[in-house]
Amino acid sequence: MNSEAVPEVVVLRLPLYVRTLTQLQREGAEVVSSQQLGTRLQMTPAQIRKDLSYFGRFGKQGRGYNIHFLLAELEDILGLTREWNVCLIGVGRLGRAIINYTGFAPEGFAIVAAFDSNDARVGSDVGGLKVRPMSELSETISEARVAIGIVAVPAAQAQSVIDLLVRNGIRGILNYAPVAPYVPEGIVMRNIDPVLSLQSMTYYLQDQ
Amino acid sequence: MNSEAVPEVVVLRLPLYVRTLTQLQREGAEVVSSQQLGTRLQMTPAQIRKDLSYFGRFGKQGRGYNIHFLLAELEDILGLTREWNVCLIGVGRLGRAIINYTGFAPEGFAIVAAFDSNDARVGSDVGGLKVRPMSELSETISEARVAIGIVAVPAAQAQSVIDLLVRNGIRGILNYAPVAPYVPEGIVMRNIDPVLSLQSMTYYLQDQ
Repeated sequence: MNSEAVPEVVVLRLPLYVRTLTQLQREGAEVVSSQQLGTRLQMTPAQIRKDLSYFGRFGKQGRGYNIHFLLAELEDILGLTREWNVCLIGVGRLGRAIINYTGFAPEGFAIVAAFDSNDARVGSDVGGLKVRPMSELSETISEARVAIGIVAVPAAQAQSVIDLLVRNGIRGILNYAPVAPYVPEGIVMRNIDPVLSLQSMTYYLQDQ
Repeated sequence: MNSEAVPEVVVLRLPLYVRTLTQLQREGAEVVSSQQLGTRLQMTPAQIRKDLSYFGRFGKQGRGYNIHFLLAELEDILGLTREWNVCLIGVGRLGRAIINYTGFAPEGFAIVAAFDSNDARVGSDVGGLKVRPMSELSETISEARVAIGIVAVPAAQAQSVIDLLVRNGIRGILNYAPVAPYVPEGIVMRNIDPVLSLQSMTYYLQDQ
């Protein structure tokens, strides 16, 4: 499989397939058609079939997809069958909420270390993690095999924190700071930013 | 301009252009090349030129884009030159954090009403908003000209809350619940979900 050949927009949709298939499985379904998936995901059946075709043949003509099999394959494709170690930078109000968020661990994302540049926060316990000083970042990333960094620092510090993570070998960045940081090629960054999401909705809301 | 003709992936990128151009403007820049924008946004100059070409001609060959002009045009295209009224459903820990988030108002998104189905929360004051009962939803949406609903209820309630918003004329949904809700055609939904973002990163992090 050549990951370069799969458009990023398709990769961005795969977790939504995983979530929808998981819900269908919980509801007791065993087979789903591209039509049904399309209705759930606001996509055409043709789009669904095209997305999945990048990764092989999953369905038989006219018989729909086996949910259990398709789900397992997609989880494998996305790298969700292993555990990912994550570190968090910035233990302010947002950072604390992220550490205490119960949705990460069941999905295989373990926040194993938290850092803050504020001495007053270093050493305190947040959700069972002892907040570490930034000076321990490099060693911790390498020892704990951290692959992903969550950035929850104020906007003005985001770029330098991201640069530091990248210099220390982190290749996946989940950025909560409301800025558009620069990352070099080969680094994958996702921005969690409700304003960006709202701003891409209003485009569609204007006309009517 | 025919909005149907612009791929959604392009619309999703426009807010990032707006943010980057705003930052460049603050840094004192007046002109930016597609090359420079591409470096900031991890895109090729050709992609940038193609994205912008959907909306007209913004740059002169070899002279780059006038930042002030391009920014104003993109804000106009995205509908960011007006104020949008927003309501919030679900005033638990997450909902309270959303109401208190200071990033919405400066960008033209005003949370004008908050609702909760829990009687114990109704009537309380959160960030200057009095929490209303769900029974006032319909009237409030119409009186306050609410266009967008933010859904911060538990996963199990998300679908029925979204159905209710849609029945009351809301066409833009910002969903924080970790589910993949169904919305009918013509409704624009964005999911704020860090797990989905992480799951679309790990695809790229596996190989190395």
